[in-house]
This record gives sequence, C-alpha cells and structure tokens, in this order.
Amino acid sequence: MLSDAQHSAPLAGLRVIEVSSFVAAPLGGMTLAQLGAEVIRIDPLGGAPDTTRWPLAPNGGSLYWAGLNKGKRSVALDLRSPEGQRAVADLVAGSGADGGIVLTNAGYPWLSYDALRQARADLIHLRIAGGHDGSPAVDYTVNASVGFPLATGAEDTAGPVDHVLPAWDVACGLYAAIGILAAERHRRRTGEGRAITLPLADVALAVTGHLGFLAEGRLGAGRPRIGNHLYGGFARDFRTGSGDFVMIVTLTPRHYADLARVTGRTEALTAVERALGADFTKDSDRYAHREVIAALVAPWFAGHTTDEVTEALSGTSVLWDRYRTFAELAAAPETLANPLVSLINQPGIGEILATGIPLAQPGTPATPAPAPLLGADTDAVLREARKRIVDSSAHSDVENYPLS
Amino acid sequence: MLSDAQHSAPLAGLRVIEVSSFVAAPLGGMTLAQLGAEVIRIDPLGGAPDTTRWPLAPNGGSLYWAGLNKGKRSVALDLRSPEGQRAVADLVAGSGADGGIVLTNAGYPWLSYDALRQARADLIHLRIAGGHDGSPAVDYTVNASVGFPLATGAEDTAGPVDHVLPAWDVACGLYAAIGILAAERHRRRTGEGRAITLPLADVALAVTGHLGFLAEGRLGAGRPRIGNHLYGGFARDFRTGSGDFVMIVTLTPRHYADLARVTGRTEALTAVERALGADFTKDSDRYAHREVIAALVAPWFAGHTTDEVTEALSGTSVLWDRYRTFAELAAAPETLANPLVSLINQPGIGEILATGIPLAQPGTPATPAPAPLLGADTDAVLREARKRIVDSSAHSDVENYPLS
Repeated sequence: MLSDAQHSAPLAGLRVIEVSSFVAAPLGGMTLAQLGAEVIRIDPLGGAPDTTRWPLAPNGGSLYWAGLNKGKRSVALDLRSPEGQRAVADLVAGSGADGGIVLTNAGYPWLSYDALRQARADLIHLRIAGGHDGSPAVDYTVNASVGFPLATGAEDTAGPVDHVLPAWDVACGLYAAIGILAAERHRRRTGEGRAITLPLADVALAVTGHLGFLAEGRLGAGRPRIGNHLYGGFARDFRTGSGDFVMIVTLTPRHYADLARVTGRTEALTAVERALGADFTKDSDRYAHREVIAALVAPWFAGHTTDEVTEALSGTSVLWDRYRTFAELAAAPETLANPLVSLINQPGIGEILATGIPLAQPGTPATPAPAPLLGADTDAVLREARKRIVDSSAHSDVENYPLS
Repeated sequence: MLSDAQHSAPLAGLRVIEVSSFVAAPLGGMTLAQLGAEVIRIDPLGGAPDTTRWPLAPNGGSLYWAGLNKGKRSVALDLRSPEGQRAVADLVAGSGADGGIVLTNAGYPWLSYDALRQARADLIHLRIAGGHDGSPAVDYTVNASVGFPLATGAEDTAGPVDHVLPAWDVACGLYAAIGILAAERHRRRTGEGRAITLPLADVALAVTGHLGFLAEGRLGAGRPRIGNHLYGGFARDFRTGSGDFVMIVTLTPRHYADLARVTGRTEALTAVERALGADFTKDSDRYAHREVIAALVAPWFAGHTTDEVTEALSGTSVLWDRYRTFAELAAAPETLANPLVSLINQPGIGEILATGIPLAQPGTPATPAPAPLLGADTDAVLREARKRIVDSSAHSDVENYPLS
C-alpha cells in the first residue's frame, strides 16, 4: 500500500531495475526513488565492489553505500548463474505497466538491451559506460583528460589539482535520471522502448563544452590558473582576523559598491580606478585589476573577527559565505534545521545524517528513507514480479513469458 | 514542421518557457531542448546579466552564453513594463497542451507560480533559488559553505582551494530538468500542476549528504586533505619523463597487480607488504600505505616518456589518463572525432566547438543547434502563442483567457 505522500509523489508507480555500483548509476536510481519511484537495486551475492567503499562508520558499515542507495529495495542474486540471470529477466518482465526500465553501469551480455528486450518489448534500457569508445573510465581519469585539474589551484602550482567532489559521477547520475524520464515520456506517447548509452567521459566533455571551456580552448591559450579568483569578474577568498576564510563574490556594480563601502575603501578604489583609466562597474575591469582590488580590501578582513565581518556584510548585497569543513557543516544548527536533512536510523549502521531530494514540492517526503540491507527484499520482490507475470498472462495483456 | 529526428526525439512536443540567467537554469532548459523540447528563453531587452559573461570570443561575443543556450528560441521583452509581463503570461497561456511549464531563477512576483497559475491552471513552475531560506547564493559561496575547498589540494595547503568547474550550478541545472520531467509525468497522470522550489544551496547539501561527507563529518574529524590521492584506495597523479602528468587509479586487486607488474615493482611491493603486515589486495591497506606505494612506483613514471607509459599501460586493467589543458582537449583529434562534438556556425560569433547531449540514442541530433541571437524569435513566438490561445478558446478546450 502506498502512503498518501507516496501517492502524490511525482514518480509514484514508476518501477526501475538497477544493476549498479559506485556513484553515477546508484545516484541516478536514488534520485528517481526520492521522487517516489520504486527502485530495485540488484547486487551479486555478497554485494558489488561499492559495498565496502569509504567513508566508513565506526562499525565498518559503508556511509558511501548507505548514502547512495536510500529508499531503494535490495535484491541479491548469484549473477554468475543462469538462474540468477533469469531471475533478473523475470524482474524486468514482471515490473508492471510502468516498469520495464533498466539502469545499469554493468556490461554483461545477459543484461544488455538486446537480451532483456526478449522479456519486455517496450524496454527502456540506460547503460552508463566509461569512454565513448567503450574503454573503461572513472571520474578521476575523465577529470584529468578534460582540463580542470591543470586550471585549479594557486597560480604557482606546478601539477594538477584534482577535485574531491566526484562532480562527473554526480552529473552522470543526474543525466541518467533525465534520460530515463525522457524515454518514459516517449514510451507513453508512442509505446516504443529505447536503448540509451551514457558514457561518463561524454558527460564531462558535454558539460565542458556547454560552459564554454572547449570553445575557449580552441582559441589557443585556454584558461589561466588564477587561484580562487573568479574568471572574468571580481570574487576571491579572504582571511579574517579570526583565522577563518570567507568567499566574497561581486557579480554586479551594486555588489562591488557595497564591498567597497563596507571595507571603507570607496575613495581609495575610486582613486585607483581613475589613475588606471579603469571602470570598476565593469566585470572585465574588476577582473583585470583583481589583485589591486584584493590588496586594498584584504586588510579590512584581516583586521576584523569573523563575527564582525558577518555583521558588516549582513544587509548588504555582497554575496559571501564562510568556508567550513565537513565537520563544521554537519555540526551547524542550520544544517539540521533544514528539512532536507534528517537524522535517520540506518539499518546495519545506526543513526546517521541523511539528505532528501532538493526539489521541494508536495509529495516528496521530508524524511529520507534509509538504504536497505543487502538482499533484504529479494524474496518479496521476486514473488511480486512473478505474480505480475502470471496475472498479465492470464489477462492476455502481455505475451506469454516463460517463468524461470 | 518537425524533422524526422525531432519527431522521434524523446521530448518532442514539450514546450518550456525559461526566464533565466547564468548557469543552472539555462543548463536545465538546454538539456530539455537537446532532447527535443521547444525551449523559449525570455530575456529583458538588451539581455540578462549573463549576456556578456566570460569566456568571450575574439569579436566579444560570449562563449558562455552561446554554450548554455543552444537549441533554444529567444524572446526579448521589456520585463519592467506591464505589457512585457502580460506577454510572458500569454506565452504561458498559449503554450499548448504539452506546455504550461516555467523554469526560472528569477523571483519577480509577476513571474511567480501564484501569478502565472491564473493564465494556466495546470502550470508546472520550477524556481531555482539561492539559499534554503531565500537568501542569495551562488556556486562559489555555496561551495565554500559545504566543505570541499578545505579538503582540496596538497596536504600542506593553508587555505581553501576552489573548484574551477561550477559543479553545483551544473548539478542544479540537471536537477531542474529532472524536476520538470517528473512533474510533467505527474500532470499527465492526474491533470495537476505543481510549484517546485530548487535552492542551489540545497543541491550542494543534498549531494554532500548522498556521498557520505555529511555522515562522516558528524563523526568528528571529517575528511583529511590528501592532495590528489583517492580517499580509501590507491590512486594518484604521477609525472612522466616527458614532464606530463598522468592519473593512475587502482580500484580492484587486478588493477593494483597490473600496476605493480608494469612498473616492475611486484617483488618490492610484496616484500614491503610482508614487512608491514599489510594486504595490498585490500583498498584500505593500499590507502594506509599510499605514500610507500607511490614512492615505489613513481621512479618508473619519471624514467619513461609519456609515449612509453601509454604503451606499457595499454592492454592492462589499470585505469588511467593523461592530464590535459583545455587547449589540448580542444585540439585532440579524438575530441572532434566524437559525434558529441561539432564545429557549428554560431550566429553573432562564427565557427565554434559545441557539444550535444551525452545521452546517445535515436532522435537526438548529432549536430547541436546553435544558440539564438537575442530576441530573434520574439515576434514568431508571440504570434504562435496568441494563435493557440484563440484556437483553444474557439474549441472551448481552455477557459477564456484575456488576450493582452
């Protein structure tokens, strides 16, 4: 039985079979689950390679796995045996009218579109791959190849600076959810299924192109390394007298004028502007003279405590925030006060901080459901699927499907 | 008339009105456009603040704007005037059965869900906000507050290291596309519209939670700064004898064994393993002794050219790639050979490198459409919308709507 919240959830009724590991595919499935879809993650007996990924809880449970599989049902099968592979096909065949959707980052032939289409003619099958040519690739290798690490960090950095956020995996998982929803819309209009390939390397290449880096790179020099400065405007980190760092961003003339005023540098900046023949209401001139502007306002930050900086910037238009560690973020009162965040009881681990879907709307539950224990739903899910196959055959709604 | 490719595009027929600026909302709309939706971007006369954002083409045109608005139609209106605001309501009212969808990051009262619902009862309205509390926030301030910059960069780095990729804007834009597609599915099933709020800060908080950083942060210490090492495994950058950097990733015992063999260190690593009482087939032990492993294999990279490294790693299971600059990426033959990338003729700029949608499937055109010139479609789009309103009224399909 669906609860009221699940009934009004935007993806209520949608059923997705996920055979996945690591970040991208699990995040794609979880995004659909947090919007109300029933997402069944299938793992090999004992779990996929991500079962024990760091970070770990004190009891050894994976906070990574728990975080990326919230709200799913878990089925564990011997995927090396013909019986296990047949059971996956049964789950696809018996996933109901709003089912027949497979999301995977695995390349097994028995899990391919061509193989599973036998179980369900209108199959939607989205496979996340590595490189465009089928070569293996992961977030860190893809990131190296597209250019960001050699443009990140202080001007005098010699080598690459990798991101800690697996940004391409995150984008890939979200593209996967988009691909499935778009294909499901098309299927409702036409009855047609669809095979979709989503290479992680193409996600990085596409976004790098969309943001202009590729077009800029073709012009020759490409992006210089400029530390924490914003390219083409004035924004940078400053250190307060308390030893904290704050990020200060001025995107408009008003932001900039407020920063000049708060730091008591309006006159000095105007004098410099005049002397340099510059116009600091323009992004490009603020960028060209960013070191001068930074040098003029930095002493104000160094001369004030973080509390004083906070008070002075409040009520101005300046965009800013304090840099925090993950531990500070987790401990901040406003984090727990945000309805997006809940302390939940995670089976196998205990109480952990968990987050919901950032799309605030009726029908998305305030408290995220925990991740399942590995294999917790195997029997129930297989039973339900086989019942659906029998019922459908009895009503001649679908072609007769051989039960394994 | 729709071409064959557009007909079979998964989102053919969907019509979205976008009032947007910068990265997130434009990327959300463009993602839908590249899957076949008709996306109409509305700007104030003269353009929104992103019209002139860097990077710029040699002729001054914004490569940023061109990159984030591909395949849309452009309408420019005086949005300060009642007439301009009424015209937007007309566009919403006259957007057809598969329309009535608004995507914006603007907070004008006349553009709110409550205001536009008057024009269209089953309106889907997705607004991207800054902070959860309605405060302004941008990618760089949000990133400072969630924890990544203080965990990025070399161990001895004192301050924050900001990302160059606006990863939260990218994720937010993709979440916006997901939110719209999910709401549109719900509307098809129930007839109900929906108001959705998507705060950029909540996107960062949700993803930080999903990846386990929030749960880990609550345990106290949080994530240490470990340079380009992979947390909880063995992966790192190495410098070749040619002066290039390569990223080397070992996620499985096989990857690790291949790396040991290729670098001629199998014996030495086994001896070290035994002496330390460690088991390098385990992720956690490879991580604990990452500096030892790195020190043992680094000389092999330094002693070989990049070509030699490439040849030696080819055919092994080791995950790796060479770090490239954006300019190198743009110039690489395999970049242009990828069907995702095309040289297109961008109105107002000229020939540029542009990327399509990474979801490879029938119906998504190989060559991305360029961005429109600002306001190029104003008259045609308004005419079409008003014709639809008149036609609908004549057929009594919708309530009578006062034409402005």
